[in-house]
Amino acid sequence: MIVSVDTVRATLEAALRHAGASAPHAALQAALLIEAEMRGLASHGLLRLPRVVERIRNGVCAPNAEGAHTWRASHVLDVDGQQGLGPVVAMRALDAVCERAAEGGVAVACIRNNNHLGMLAWYAQTVAERGYTLIALSTSEALVHPWGGRRAMLGTNPIAIGVPAGGPHAPRPLVMDMATSLVAMGKIHDYASRGAPLEAGWALDADGEPTLDAQAAKHGAIAPFGGAKGYALGLAFEVLVTALTGSAIGTDVTGTLDSHTPCNKGDVFVVIAPQRDPALHARVAAYLRAVRACEPANAQRPVSVPGDRAAASREHALAHGIDVNDALWDTLETLAAAHAV
Amino acid sequence: MIVSVDTVRATLEAALRHAGASAPHAALQAALLIEAEMRGLASHGLLRLPRVVERIRNGVCAPNAEGAHTWRASHVLDVDGQQGLGPVVAMRALDAVCERAAEGGVAVACIRNNNHLGMLAWYAQTVAERGYTLIALSTSEALVHPWGGRRAMLGTNPIAIGVPAGGPHAPRPLVMDMATSLVAMGKIHDYASRGAPLEAGWALDADGEPTLDAQAAKHGAIAPFGGAKGYALGLAFEVLVTALTGSAIGTDVTGTLDSHTPCNKGDVFVVIAPQRDPALHARVAAYLRAVRACEPANAQRPVSVPGDRAAASREHALAHGIDVNDALWDTLETLAAAHAV
Repeated sequence: MIVSVDTVRATLEAALRHAGASAPHAALQAALLIEAEMRGLASHGLLRLPRVVERIRNGVCAPNAEGAHTWRASHVLDVDGQQGLGPVVAMRALDAVCERAAEGGVAVACIRNNNHLGMLAWYAQTVAERGYTLIALSTSEALVHPWGGRRAMLGTNPIAIGVPAGGPHAPRPLVMDMATSLVAMGKIHDYASRGAPLEAGWALDADGEPTLDAQAAKHGAIAPFGGAKGYALGLAFEVLVTALTGSAIGTDVTGTLDSHTPCNKGDVFVVIAPQRDPALHARVAAYLRAVRACEPANAQRPVSVPGDRAAASREHALAHGIDVNDALWDTLETLAAAHAV
Repeated sequence: MIVSVDTVRATLEAALRHAGASAPHAALQAALLIEAEMRGLASHGLLRLPRVVERIRNGVCAPNAEGAHTWRASHVLDVDGQQGLGPVVAMRALDAVCERAAEGGVAVACIRNNNHLGMLAWYAQTVAERGYTLIALSTSEALVHPWGGRRAMLGTNPIAIGVPAGGPHAPRPLVMDMATSLVAMGKIHDYASRGAPLEAGWALDADGEPTLDAQAAKHGAIAPFGGAKGYALGLAFEVLVTALTGSAIGTDVTGTLDSHTPCNKGDVFVVIAPQRDPALHARVAAYLRAVRACEPANAQRPVSVPGDRAAASREHALAHGIDVNDALWDTLETLAAAHAV
């Protein structure tokens, strides 16, 4: 079913307001899910809304909390997320650190007790559009095995980077957003629901043996991306985020996958003011154009820059509406209609 | 040939002083190369010394420069490296930003016009031992092809992360240091010198075709690690470093591989004061122990944490000396003996 972005937005906001979120908080949470859906990241899109509503109803998400801010030092903000909506707490924290970075050149937010941030690209895009660079890190429940190990001990630990890149030919910032797992657990669940076999090397079963059975992998572990290097990166992010936020670590992390457990992972935002040099912006934009123009290995597949496909997908959705699974749309309308009662 | 660490140190310092470096600068540059050699990263170790000396003689390295510091904002330091020795300029910058981070919680150094930093792990280790976390990024000459592209357009763009991790059972910080290329160009050169075939997927030749011929790969491009994700990461680092430092980007970067070209890449250090909570340090240390104890896929290969093998290699070298290639040792002794004349 194709639904206009405005209709999707109204439906999501109604569902969230019915669950108890204020209008601005409902708007932020809905905007995040819609952006993820439009950018082609369905795993972080509309299908997450019922989970968010369930978490509010189960008392593990306080929809009107905004996070308690304490400046640990003049340019480092500690945020107790107060179990608020992930994007609400995160955006309030980003507002505060962007303001501080405007003054001191850099500021860091260290967030604990916050719900799932969702797609990190949204924050990178937002901060870069304000003229700042962002490095965002977040941890999650342990789903990834150490390289050479049999058990899930690391989160999927994504990193996002946003950099302003001006110039008439590339007005978009560079936005990169990736998990340090080889595939998303959402992909494993998708394969399991379709009965499709996994690719070799993606996952281990509950006994730590390699498996192509998606059902078995759901109870096992996902591989880190890029072998030993991706493992090293994911582990360093896990340790760095915990050291900065005081969040839970490894298998102690809960609440990023279910509807009833408090969420105790950590999030870190590093916001830095870049050089204010139009020629430099133009140089970066020219570089990105040159990369896109690199002779491709396969003539049918031009080289792309991180965010290109997402931007094209987003433009298409804005123009033509969002393709929503029928059953999911029924669920969303039901959650929203309850609001009207 | 096995040479004691003290003898290696004296030899390297003599060679650098003969080339014109002050005693403290010679000591810093020598310490970096020796640490890399001891940690098992020979590609960044003693074999780099003749190149450093040649660069000084050719006027593209000013061995007594320390970098000109300008605080762009209260917590962001711009460093004009003045073509100094990489580790000298970098350590002076780190001293300054650690001091600022002690006050404001975070500070960033943006370095341009500096020579090769060498092994980033050394900086991560040093900063973590002072009680701070470090994220270090550096660019290099374009050696890596975009994912799906035929030409080298990205540097090997390494990242290093250092995090204090206390506790009696894990007194060492966590130190992670990796390039975003699948293999190092040094490894390609090593294979070429031995006439050994490369592994599939490592490199392209000058025409952008996959090759197993190491000689051909020297004139082509190396793959990013981890496929599209590693490419995205390396590209984001390239753009982030340029946006923050104003350094050259992509194929405009020079001077990281030869003896005669000024070095125009950029380096970024983000130093953040972590939570001062002994219980948290212990929690991180316990996590790292648990990861090492993870049931291994291969019983003969226990799971390791980034830095473990380097630390073991370093301890062995300290106790038993450094195994130096005979021809290289002759060269180093000649460079050092010239000093005595």
